[in-house]
Amino acid sequence: MCADGPPHEIAPRSGVAFTLDKGDRLIVIDPCGEQVADLLAFNRHDVDEVISSGRTLDYASRIYLTTGDPLYSNRSNVLLRIVGDTVGRHDFLLTPCSSDTFRIIYGDEHPHHGCFGNLAAALAPYGIAPDRIPVAFNCFMNVTVDGETGILSVEPPRSRAGDTITFEAETDLIIGLTACSALQSNNGSFKPIRYRIARAE
Amino acid sequence: MCADGPPHEIAPRSGVAFTLDKGDRLIVIDPCGEQVADLLAFNRHDVDEVISSGRTLDYASRIYLTTGDPLYSNRSNVLLRIVGDTVGRHDFLLTPCSSDTFRIIYGDEHPHHGCFGNLAAALAPYGIAPDRIPVAFNCFMNVTVDGETGILSVEPPRSRAGDTITFEAETDLIIGLTACSALQSNNGSFKPIRYRIARAE
Repeated sequence: MCADGPPHEIAPRSGVAFTLDKGDRLIVIDPCGEQVADLLAFNRHDVDEVISSGRTLDYASRIYLTTGDPLYSNRSNVLLRIVGDTVGRHDFLLTPCSSDTFRIIYGDEHPHHGCFGNLAAALAPYGIAPDRIPVAFNCFMNVTVDGETGILSVEPPRSRAGDTITFEAETDLIIGLTACSALQSNNGSFKPIRYRIARAE
Repeated sequence: MCADGPPHEIAPRSGVAFTLDKGDRLIVIDPCGEQVADLLAFNRHDVDEVISSGRTLDYASRIYLTTGDPLYSNRSNVLLRIVGDTVGRHDFLLTPCSSDTFRIIYGDEHPHHGCFGNLAAALAPYGIAPDRIPVAFNCFMNVTVDGETGILSVEPPRSRAGDTITFEAETDLIIGLTACSALQSNNGSFKPIRYRIARAE
């Protein structure tokens, strides 16, 4: 494994897309603390294959994933594996926030396009349509579940400044990644996200 | 609303697809008890629109849905609404069981094609590809979550013989419906599912 590349910054409430080769590592960094990053991964050679929350949680028999856990695709192949995690609390239940999220949950009259809009724009050059965006792996997002009532609660992220989660690509991928746009998910403020790529030798 | 039509039976470990018009009601019946039925719904006029667990659970702020709750699509439109429920425990976290499920979780050497295979076959005549099958709404499936550890557990369904869940179509739909093929989901045996359609006047 080569040395980590320089960090890239994703501005608050924005998103990017880029490619990884098999064996590359992606280090997602929360530079300020309490900031969520929605992550998507598609098979670069067939974008109909995408990460699947339902397959992954079924095979893990857990809703909280951390170091060692694979992220499976809708075809039950491993696309990414978590190989490092200084936080230990991420979400894989909820879809990226969108203008509909802000309209339905927050009652906004002129809603922001959210992570969904940012991901759709960033992924469009790769031929990925908005309808193909599934539940994202939401790095640092802290969603609790009451086992009795089933009530979900979006709590402040447990991440502190400098915390990271690291993924290894198990095939060639297109990645979508955001600095999340929802107030509640980020404890009331919008901050950047950074990432580095460590290329496989 | 017209009188309910005659019941249809889905044989154990099989599945069907059919259409609903806006306003029609679908009554899913567990005739023997402790049997799961995986349900999918697609917009009949644009099959790229499909039920979304991530949107639905986000807007409900609950993982357990029951009477009154809408099932949202990936475009944040309501496709179905639950209008009756004699059980009160269903799952919307896990993907339909598949040959991969049986290989990965059960270690089967010659795995059954599962609900995924049954849904893929039943939906193919409607132009819906297997890759378009998302997390299903799993009627009567009893998945518990430990709020502390996040551990998921597939428990015996709470449904008894004759229990039902009823949905109303909020747009014209294509429905996929199965009698689930996974031993653990159905407390160790494979039984039929019945359904009736009450057509809107």
